[in-house]
Amino acid sequence: MLTRVKSAVAGFMGGIMTGGGSGGGGGNSGSDLPLKFPYMRPEFLGLSPDEIECSADHVARPILILKETRRLPWATGYAEVINAGKSALNEDQACCEVVVARRRPMSYCPPSTPSKTPTAKRRNSLPNGEGLGLRLEHNRTCEDSEGLVFHYWALFDGHAGSGAAVVASRLLQHHIACQLQVVIEFIRNLHALPPAVMGEEPENTPYLQGNTPGPHRALTRAASLRGASGAPSSPSNTPPPPRFYTEKKIQHESLVIGAIENAFKEMDVQIEREKQVYNISGGCTALTVVYLLGKLYVGNAGDSRAIIIRNNAIIPMSAEFTPESERQRLQFLGYMQPHLLGNEFTHLEFPRRIQRKEVGKRMLYRDFTMSGWAYKTIEDEDLKFPLIYGEGKKARVLATIGVTRGLGDHDLKVHDSNIYIKPFLSCCPEVRANPLTF
Amino acid sequence: MLTRVKSAVAGFMGGIMTGGGSGGGGGNSGSDLPLKFPYMRPEFLGLSPDEIECSADHVARPILILKETRRLPWATGYAEVINAGKSALNEDQACCEVVVARRRPMSYCPPSTPSKTPTAKRRNSLPNGEGLGLRLEHNRTCEDSEGLVFHYWALFDGHAGSGAAVVASRLLQHHIACQLQVVIEFIRNLHALPPAVMGEEPENTPYLQGNTPGPHRALTRAASLRGASGAPSSPSNTPPPPRFYTEKKIQHESLVIGAIENAFKEMDVQIEREKQVYNISGGCTALTVVYLLGKLYVGNAGDSRAIIIRNNAIIPMSAEFTPESERQRLQFLGYMQPHLLGNEFTHLEFPRRIQRKEVGKRMLYRDFTMSGWAYKTIEDEDLKFPLIYGEGKKARVLATIGVTRGLGDHDLKVHDSNIYIKPFLSCCPEVRANPLTF
Repeated sequence: MLTRVKSAVAGFMGGIMTGGGSGGGGGNSGSDLPLKFPYMRPEFLGLSPDEIECSADHVARPILILKETRRLPWATGYAEVINAGKSALNEDQACCEVVVARRRPMSYCPPSTPSKTPTAKRRNSLPNGEGLGLRLEHNRTCEDSEGLVFHYWALFDGHAGSGAAVVASRLLQHHIACQLQVVIEFIRNLHALPPAVMGEEPENTPYLQGNTPGPHRALTRAASLRGASGAPSSPSNTPPPPRFYTEKKIQHESLVIGAIENAFKEMDVQIEREKQVYNISGGCTALTVVYLLGKLYVGNAGDSRAIIIRNNAIIPMSAEFTPESERQRLQFLGYMQPHLLGNEFTHLEFPRRIQRKEVGKRMLYRDFTMSGWAYKTIEDEDLKFPLIYGEGKKARVLATIGVTRGLGDHDLKVHDSNIYIKPFLSCCPEVRANPLTF
Repeated sequence: MLTRVKSAVAGFMGGIMTGGGSGGGGGNSGSDLPLKFPYMRPEFLGLSPDEIECSADHVARPILILKETRRLPWATGYAEVINAGKSALNEDQACCEVVVARRRPMSYCPPSTPSKTPTAKRRNSLPNGEGLGLRLEHNRTCEDSEGLVFHYWALFDGHAGSGAAVVASRLLQHHIACQLQVVIEFIRNLHALPPAVMGEEPENTPYLQGNTPGPHRALTRAASLRGASGAPSSPSNTPPPPRFYTEKKIQHESLVIGAIENAFKEMDVQIEREKQVYNISGGCTALTVVYLLGKLYVGNAGDSRAIIIRNNAIIPMSAEFTPESERQRLQFLGYMQPHLLGNEFTHLEFPRRIQRKEVGKRMLYRDFTMSGWAYKTIEDEDLKFPLIYGEGKKARVLATIGVTRGLGDHDLKVHDSNIYIKPFLSCCPEVRANPLTF
């Protein structure tokens, strides 16, 4: 009952969720499973249990700031206050740590090969935050002799429950460390670019290095295509003829970006898998900043913002993912996979809802290929609700959610329907690498 | 035979096509169908038939410039020279005209409702360049009393034959005029925004105008969703309850952008349809510039560039679409619709081709969600040729084509296979609107 009231309140306040998801409500209500981690506020706030309870006072709404400024490096700003009336607990989380990715293999790390189907249940062990061979320590900036040290800041804007944000704030940095561990030796070796194949010395490869344009190139590649596996003219038991390909040179920072990208995916897979044995409610955006070897990597999956304030000027370090900024990606997906829209939504956008009596009239619309608008004759099909609807902070996907990337939300459905939201949400961040020279 | 030699030469020279398409070769060879339009050079060059023949001299390679500068407005630059050895004829085309879109309905214009399946054959008449009710005239800049006058510049980079570029250079401006004709009255009426529904006066609508945030909004929308057509709780014979929606305000320039976007699509549909009765060989990029009511609209579907030179500075007005700039869109499509890759290509990108003996090793890769790189264990599946391969000007889609947007190419297949390229090519331009104030 409490959950229902909370959902109604959340809808009334025009929060991020307008329809309650099946994982809705705050805290651990509505599930008999145990929590993966107890509810908490960010560790760097250093709050006592009493203070945590007070922080959720919806009348006083205390603004929480750092007790000791030195708990956050680099003059990082932090303040939080609960959203009055939206949820019993503050569903947002944050994290700031210095993390060491060890050079030696960490047996708990997942293989970096992505699973074929990202939503498939994986059986391998994933980090649970303890016994990982990771040391988490503060006030340490030097490079560890056995591993790679990185500064880590993260913000998680939770919705429809606090579970996903709590889990992500405890574990995402470990996933990043695991992904980095695989490539530590290549990242640290600035004298050579990462090898295309692990264990391969660039000098020993039979391939020409770099871009060597030449008259034979096009024909050679066309011929090689037909010699590829699976081509009718090339039985796979025939040894391939010698080839001279160019090889793309991958920079060191591309490995860090790839590690952060895959860490987000692994985090999302872990949440999905562990929802079967733990109560991990809701979903959250994820914004991470990794400072590693002189570069700042800002990874963003959601609509939070990373900024740097320098000489009183605001420097944006990330871009938001919203129904408006991702409209064309989402419409394209709905167009390609119409079953994801149930029989209730249309991938076309209209300036407003259409009434049945307007069928046959010509109305403004736009499709996934368009940034402009044109008129089309309204058909019955167009009476369905638009996949993307509303403007600015009121824009929603599937009439439900106002952000298009993040972690969790695996059970979230359109209110009173069997239409899942998750296929439209991406857990993949945009990662921007910035040399700290501005 | 000539066609085969030409294809081989084109491949040898490392041109845009490395495998000859089924519509390959230049001119009208290889087809018994008549040409839609005779081969020509741009009209504004004012060349005689003899001069056109000389322009294709692969030894002398004359540079063609304007005979009279005043033939192109606004100090538009133009020069062309044939690609030595790539094709018998220059497959590129250009066009510059002043076009009038009439206010009165042009019966030849297609309905602006997009067909459900863009590749479906449409039976309605489309413009053929004559008898359209369009007047094409030079040196006219004032606004026509009955219609809308726009300046039009266009560039078409042809490949695998000259047919598509010739047709597009003759007809695309008419498609733009047709699309604009539908919205002339709204574009010219700067005192009111375009109505959501044609024939609807903003004052007479039952809808609240603009963005009116209020506490009832979210719940109302959620309720309305369930009342939409097709929802189980809403039999379609029940009159809809009164609703108060916000309505998105569409700006005038969005109608021009939408008109240009849909004109490109209609042009591509016409080429596909008329290939059944005419010989329209190859494909082409399309870059159009429309100057209308004080704004410059640059529409680009391809890898040509529009620039403005001002005070000796180059101002880029468009961005190119290449296998590299569109990698993630193309990989996503291949991932979602693997049958489009035949059994020969993989949507994953690798830094180079993989040899069978490398199966089981860990190689760098990236998927459609990634901008960075990571290592994965090579499987048999990864021996397929990458959908996107090569770097810079050598980058190719399906080992065939180096540009990812354009018109035509409906018959183009991967060399010696049944894999069509067209599903990966978009005919939709990116349109940028620029007030001419810089």
